[in-house]
Amino acid sequence: MGVSTGLDDGNAGEALSSYLRTQATAFLRGLGLRGDDEDTADALLRGSARRIAGVLHTYGVLTDPAWAEPMRTELGWLGATLGREPQYAVRLGRLLDALRRLSVLAPAEEALTAAAAPLPQGADGGAGAEPAGGARRSAGAAVAARGTVPAQSSGPLAVGAARAAALLERQLTLARTRAHSATLQAMGSARFHALADSIALLASEVPLTARAAEPADQVLPPLAGQAHTRLADAAGTLPLRRAGHPYNAEAVQAALGADLTADLQDAPWHQVRILLRLSRYAAEVPGAGGHGDPRLAEAALVLQRHHEAAESAAAVAAAARTPRIAPATAYALGVLHADQRHEVEAARFAFSRLWQS
Amino acid sequence: MGVSTGLDDGNAGEALSSYLRTQATAFLRGLGLRGDDEDTADALLRGSARRIAGVLHTYGVLTDPAWAEPMRTELGWLGATLGREPQYAVRLGRLLDALRRLSVLAPAEEALTAAAAPLPQGADGGAGAEPAGGARRSAGAAVAARGTVPAQSSGPLAVGAARAAALLERQLTLARTRAHSATLQAMGSARFHALADSIALLASEVPLTARAAEPADQVLPPLAGQAHTRLADAAGTLPLRRAGHPYNAEAVQAALGADLTADLQDAPWHQVRILLRLSRYAAEVPGAGGHGDPRLAEAALVLQRHHEAAESAAAVAAAARTPRIAPATAYALGVLHADQRHEVEAARFAFSRLWQS
Repeated sequence: MGVSTGLDDGNAGEALSSYLRTQATAFLRGLGLRGDDEDTADALLRGSARRIAGVLHTYGVLTDPAWAEPMRTELGWLGATLGREPQYAVRLGRLLDALRRLSVLAPAEEALTAAAAPLPQGADGGAGAEPAGGARRSAGAAVAARGTVPAQSSGPLAVGAARAAALLERQLTLARTRAHSATLQAMGSARFHALADSIALLASEVPLTARAAEPADQVLPPLAGQAHTRLADAAGTLPLRRAGHPYNAEAVQAALGADLTADLQDAPWHQVRILLRLSRYAAEVPGAGGHGDPRLAEAALVLQRHHEAAESAAAVAAAARTPRIAPATAYALGVLHADQRHEVEAARFAFSRLWQS
Repeated sequence: MGVSTGLDDGNAGEALSSYLRTQATAFLRGLGLRGDDEDTADALLRGSARRIAGVLHTYGVLTDPAWAEPMRTELGWLGATLGREPQYAVRLGRLLDALRRLSVLAPAEEALTAAAAPLPQGADGGAGAEPAGGARRSAGAAVAARGTVPAQSSGPLAVGAARAAALLERQLTLARTRAHSATLQAMGSARFHALADSIALLASEVPLTARAAEPADQVLPPLAGQAHTRLADAAGTLPLRRAGHPYNAEAVQAALGADLTADLQDAPWHQVRILLRLSRYAAEVPGAGGHGDPRLAEAALVLQRHHEAAESAAAVAAAARTPRIAPATAYALGVLHADQRHEVEAARFAFSRLWQS
């Protein structure tokens, strides 16, 4: 496979290079933004890193593998590093929302609760079960105080919801802080600077193969088609018929099983999520014949939801392993875990309906 | 309203009396069976007591209220008394089945677990959290030993499933034993003997009103129709549109809210279940124009499932309030509670689809 850099208008290499240039520009814009708006900057960096890695994979025959493969490895590292902090933030938000939803008062109860004398606090005898945790503890307490996790409404079990919120807030905030430090460290590393230099070069020069000189409309659509076929094949192995039957209770089987049960169940769905992303990025390259099926974008959101719910359920199970938690806290975490596994099941149902339509 | 005992062939009173005679015969057969097969006997007694009370309600204008109303009160007492023991048995069976389902091993895990060295036991430090409980404790332990609640598979959290099973088995077996004693006591009481005498009289003579002398085909269908209208009206007030949307997560809102949340949510569904039963019994009377819509029988089963799941969830919440349970036990109970509330939601979904079809 010879390397060619001479491009004709309308050939596959030009189309791919043009796409990579766009992504490289986004990446560099993200870098420049970091001082002002870290979240937006990181989203840009992450999005372009994923897209570059994705199309280098799908259109692998068009680029020099000795250049592309190490590049993809480094992009994978960066994407994973940058992805962690927002994942923890999303996870915490999802779990606190779920706890609020699971603790809502019926309207008549709100009136009763408002009218009632203060109920005994700490009735589950769990004082000291969780470390006090200073400022982070007070964040969870504030959630309870706002009445969104109404600890005062029904004694020990509802107290557990507020404590579970505080515990998750503490653990996931700590994880998020660590991920933030890891990101800062990564961004200051020689490894990152080398990668940024390689990406900057994408704006000027992509090492292409001879195949890249062939017409875009002959080369790109079959390669994008292969990506879509890989997606369709993987989706075809999913238990879609079962998932399309509501309340099949399959995803929740994992709730009291070993963690491995969930992992084995979820992995094929996560795989489809990644193949779906690759297929969508492949279709973004000009001339790839991307027909922009709106179902793919919707399916991607549904599988994203599946992934977040599965990861959130795992975080709840991890929190439940915290030593010396109060039984009421553990109970609330159990309810929350099952709830998130049902969200997993709901996402499978939605994907099943969407994919088979 | 004069009382008439003179019946013409084909009049409403004769039709009702004939139905009541059939039920009285079933009741007396149940009484005779009690020495041999208590479960079958009690099911017969309960079924006929409910049916007699039901038709005396629906066809109230045909019988002397001074006789029918105290009779219905006594039948209600007997039905409730006899119903308790089987309810606890069904509840325990449902919850142990659910715990097994929630703890299943994926096939690959079974192999791993079989190959693995024994994992540490009691890692959650919960020794002594539940009283030992003698023989009943060993029943729960046997469930675990059979591998249906595989405590050995993933450390503290799965240990909780076996402990939750043992705790529920202990509590519900105790409740069942008490209900059994209460039944025996009731069956030996003067109150029961007076009721049995009244029922025996149904085989020979029902105190009817003048209205009962009118033709059955003119009197019974409108009364049965009224029972069906009451059912349809009550079903019409249910949130069927929302319930028909799968994974709406409404029923599980109650999981961490006050008990009242569940009660307020569930009560209208339970009410429809009772009206459905009354409507079905009314249609059983010959000449009532019962068209035997198979959807009604199916809907009754679905609402029965709704009721059992709701009561089971409440029993789990009660078990979670047991003092000094281990966190792993509380966690498993939380998962189980949410699971049963999802069963409630699944039953609402099924009813919604059925009723709107």
